[in-house]
Amino acid sequence: MNERVCERLKALRKIMEERGVQHYYITTADYHNSEYADDYFKEREFMSGFTGSNGNLLIESEKAGLWTDGRYFIQAEKELEGSEITLFRMAEEGVPTVTEYLEQNIQEGEILAFDGRTVAARLGRQMEAILEKKKGKVLYHLDFVDEIWTDRPSRKCNEVFALDEKICGKTVAQKLDMVRVAMSKKNCKNLVLSKMDDIMWLFNIRGKDVKCNPVALSYAIITEDNSYLFLQENAVTEKLKDWIAKQPVTLCDYERIMEFLQNQTWNGAVLLDNENISYAIYKLVKDSAEVVWGDNPTELLKSMKNEVELEMMREVYLKDSLVVCRFMKWMKENIGKIPMSELSAAEYMDNLRRETEGFLDLSFPTICGYKENAAMMHYQATEDNYKELEAESMLLIDCGGQYLGGTTDVTRTFALGPVTEVMKEHFTAVAMGMLRLLNGKFLYGCTGRNLDILARGPLWDRNIDYKCGTGHGIGYILNVHEGPQNVRWRFLEGMKEVPLEEGMVLSNEPGVYIEGSHGIRTENIMVTKRGEKNGDGQFMHFESLTFVPIDLDLIDTSIMEKKDIENLNRYHKEVYEKIAPLMTEEEASWLKEVTREVK
Amino acid sequence: MNERVCERLKALRKIMEERGVQHYYITTADYHNSEYADDYFKEREFMSGFTGSNGNLLIESEKAGLWTDGRYFIQAEKELEGSEITLFRMAEEGVPTVTEYLEQNIQEGEILAFDGRTVAARLGRQMEAILEKKKGKVLYHLDFVDEIWTDRPSRKCNEVFALDEKICGKTVAQKLDMVRVAMSKKNCKNLVLSKMDDIMWLFNIRGKDVKCNPVALSYAIITEDNSYLFLQENAVTEKLKDWIAKQPVTLCDYERIMEFLQNQTWNGAVLLDNENISYAIYKLVKDSAEVVWGDNPTELLKSMKNEVELEMMREVYLKDSLVVCRFMKWMKENIGKIPMSELSAAEYMDNLRRETEGFLDLSFPTICGYKENAAMMHYQATEDNYKELEAESMLLIDCGGQYLGGTTDVTRTFALGPVTEVMKEHFTAVAMGMLRLLNGKFLYGCTGRNLDILARGPLWDRNIDYKCGTGHGIGYILNVHEGPQNVRWRFLEGMKEVPLEEGMVLSNEPGVYIEGSHGIRTENIMVTKRGEKNGDGQFMHFESLTFVPIDLDLIDTSIMEKKDIENLNRYHKEVYEKIAPLMTEEEASWLKEVTREVK
Repeated sequence: MNERVCERLKALRKIMEERGVQHYYITTADYHNSEYADDYFKEREFMSGFTGSNGNLLIESEKAGLWTDGRYFIQAEKELEGSEITLFRMAEEGVPTVTEYLEQNIQEGEILAFDGRTVAARLGRQMEAILEKKKGKVLYHLDFVDEIWTDRPSRKCNEVFALDEKICGKTVAQKLDMVRVAMSKKNCKNLVLSKMDDIMWLFNIRGKDVKCNPVALSYAIITEDNSYLFLQENAVTEKLKDWIAKQPVTLCDYERIMEFLQNQTWNGAVLLDNENISYAIYKLVKDSAEVVWGDNPTELLKSMKNEVELEMMREVYLKDSLVVCRFMKWMKENIGKIPMSELSAAEYMDNLRRETEGFLDLSFPTICGYKENAAMMHYQATEDNYKELEAESMLLIDCGGQYLGGTTDVTRTFALGPVTEVMKEHFTAVAMGMLRLLNGKFLYGCTGRNLDILARGPLWDRNIDYKCGTGHGIGYILNVHEGPQNVRWRFLEGMKEVPLEEGMVLSNEPGVYIEGSHGIRTENIMVTKRGEKNGDGQFMHFESLTFVPIDLDLIDTSIMEKKDIENLNRYHKEVYEKIAPLMTEEEASWLKEVTREVK
Repeated sequence: MNERVCERLKALRKIMEERGVQHYYITTADYHNSEYADDYFKEREFMSGFTGSNGNLLIESEKAGLWTDGRYFIQAEKELEGSEITLFRMAEEGVPTVTEYLEQNIQEGEILAFDGRTVAARLGRQMEAILEKKKGKVLYHLDFVDEIWTDRPSRKCNEVFALDEKICGKTVAQKLDMVRVAMSKKNCKNLVLSKMDDIMWLFNIRGKDVKCNPVALSYAIITEDNSYLFLQENAVTEKLKDWIAKQPVTLCDYERIMEFLQNQTWNGAVLLDNENISYAIYKLVKDSAEVVWGDNPTELLKSMKNEVELEMMREVYLKDSLVVCRFMKWMKENIGKIPMSELSAAEYMDNLRRETEGFLDLSFPTICGYKENAAMMHYQATEDNYKELEAESMLLIDCGGQYLGGTTDVTRTFALGPVTEVMKEHFTAVAMGMLRLLNGKFLYGCTGRNLDILARGPLWDRNIDYKCGTGHGIGYILNVHEGPQNVRWRFLEGMKEVPLEEGMVLSNEPGVYIEGSHGIRTENIMVTKRGEKNGDGQFMHFESLTFVPIDLDLIDTSIMEKKDIENLNRYHKEVYEKIAPLMTEEEASWLKEVTREVK
């Protein structure tokens, strides 16, 4: 693999030299700042061999560096081995960011190039400023990788479909109204959207252009009195065209967005999102209009699920939890009796989901890590590289589905046989943290930063940390990761921090990752709810959507507080009450046992 | 009282009308943004009758409004009664800030006036921007209150003294070096300081110009190769003059700071602190130099106590804790037997402190609140208004001293006899919170925002909040409140949020305040320490400086977790071990009893 990487670097450097470019930057992003890009856009993976979902590559004449976050340190180390690419561990002490690195390493008069469609406006502008200081320049109309990527996959163009209004809770017209109110609060009469999940939400449509994310390649422009939806021509069926004709929406061709922007006469300021609009779009808009920077109003509106969406999700999560319960039962009853591997276990889980009513797709590729493989947060077993499962140690499985009714995400770690005391201590501390956050009460105005220590505290007490946030937002029949809400203890540049609002759905997933030994994660999804309002303010709390047992074989109650044990027993009682009615009698009696009260 | 306020408002409005001013703004601040201003500066109190330590007054032709924070809501309501001044409860939902209020209420072409020496640059600049938008203007060279305040107290001018280098840990020259390194990191060659405690720290001097704060009216200017210290001429003794002559410091006259700034030819940019430099100074500097906004580097350097300071503080806190233990014993043994009042109890406490070796002053006026009076966070009993103490309910006492060796601050709430179950529950939840924060472990990089919920959680779990931060920084023989560190769950505009650094000293003081019923606060002071450093990062924790029993008569162990009980017993064991050796035998045996292990 890494010989291929070396060859590709060589080929790219040849082009760089020919064009007088000293630094070439390649992001993970597609043109829409998607977290998971379709294969067509995987230039960074093509060039570096690193397969994680977050990582940016800087190729220079002599050196090359890859920046990725804590979820991927172990994986990136492995995948970059022998490639000459240096790993920059984001947010670690003393590790420069890409811009800090450029600031220090770019020589006077040099040129930095990138594909401006794949670089966020904020970053592009920062780089522009650095190059300006160095009397160099930024070239952003270049896609060098395309020139050497001869077998590049074609760009996806799948059918787009409209969702039934009944499961959306709001019409397109109502959503456009909400967005325009938010726009006018920022004194803007126009909004350009390129974030696909925002566009899907706003227009009550879905697509299939990104694996696991039911989104379509699209752009949108909202003006005071019109809204333009840009879709690929071949993705639009007659049925969809008819439906759109009945909406306050003008359908346009995806390929013509840049042309449209170039020719647009703007009435009033244009709202752009620094993180979610590409540098290329920003440069076009800036030429003809006043730009106001601000978050896409769609992002916050989308994150606060309405009652229809929440009702749908509650139901879907019961079905999805049932799937994980069945997996747990199968695993516990068959381990050591029939051959199993990380791959076949994941396949078993995925098939259970596929058989579930309303299933559309997985919401991300199932992570199934055994023993030390589970220490890699986003480990993917492959045909070439996987472990057989035995009746010992622990298995971590993190998985979810896209259903017509919601997007799910859940992680459980199971004992497959004897485990060490340390593993039990770690598992118990993780469960305590997850349950403390789930049962946390807080005042309105809190962000995830205020609450993170509820989940992380039991680990910090043991001098252990997990190098990622505790929770992310989750879409509704949309991306499994969505903003702006999250639970983290610190925020890197560009990360959003917002008060947790009623209806926001979040994951709650503390973990322990001991390199070379074991990995544990327990993840529930929860909804933010209003509680008592009194003279001290509006109190808030969470409701769990996930109802899957926490493996009692891994629980050591001796290190738990009274409250932690109550939390666990109360949760397990609810799991039984909600899931048993969906089960056969035999399954229900098994569930009764694994959700038994502990002391 | 409020007739007087009404008359004063009338007189001020007359001047406003004569000068064509529609809005006149009066802050709590002196010229140095001190939290506690000397009587000379108490224009806001003179004009409104509100005596709290934080509150800003806006007087308009027809209306008047006072903005204050949650500590003072109850008190301000009382003191403003019948004055026509509207109370604006800062940070409450739907309550505008002063600038939001101005934005909404200023009419085109109107004039806003204030004394620019008492308004922070940030706020002055915000107001300037609002007035500009409204085509009005800001006048900042006016002090209307001075014109009607005929019996205004004279400005303090007490002797300034130098501290022995041995108790400072660093020389003036060393501190100037540290400050210049920090300045150069911001590409600044000059720094103007007007925050008195920063100046005292930097020059190893102290004064007596503000009650309870050992500071002198002063300014300072640090350039690349000189440092100018501005003191009132009559405050400088021959001895001090001789000492300053040996330091790399030029002594200047306090009265001539504005003139000096007007005539200064600057070499390089000037660093100014938006919050701590007055608008008047900013306007002068801005005319002749490039201004760089940034925190005073002195503030952060001062907050990280060195080992000499910490050793001195540990010793002083033992002596001070002994004082509070003696008060507790006296109170518990004599309540109901001898007449006592809030006033006489505070006097008893203050006298115990005054008799302590090294005592200089109180660090703030002792707060001694009985029953519902304790619900006012910063209640002050007066000769006209105080409660007698009886053998029932609870007494809250919050007090501290300035010693040659440290500044102390401590709060305890004691049962004086029978209490209700609710009081015990509230007291226990407060103790749990205080001890959870004290025993918290966290990663380096955390700010007080990450940790606040440790202290506040047991109250939030009960739908109770306290409307103030959990902790503030504390000076070394300096102000009892200092920045930039703090523990809060949210930050209002202008509040600083910094990672907790080794050596930072913080208060930890959760509370419950039930208007008309009772108030509880338990406050320890603690030092931030480094713990284990491993692959997950640098872990941090706290060390307590305060060693005073937590009243077991108010503890209900049935609502505590195992860990909370361990925290309490461990703390009480330490209290006994540290304080008993300083006590008589009879006292020590009493202490043994009140620090007994509970279950």
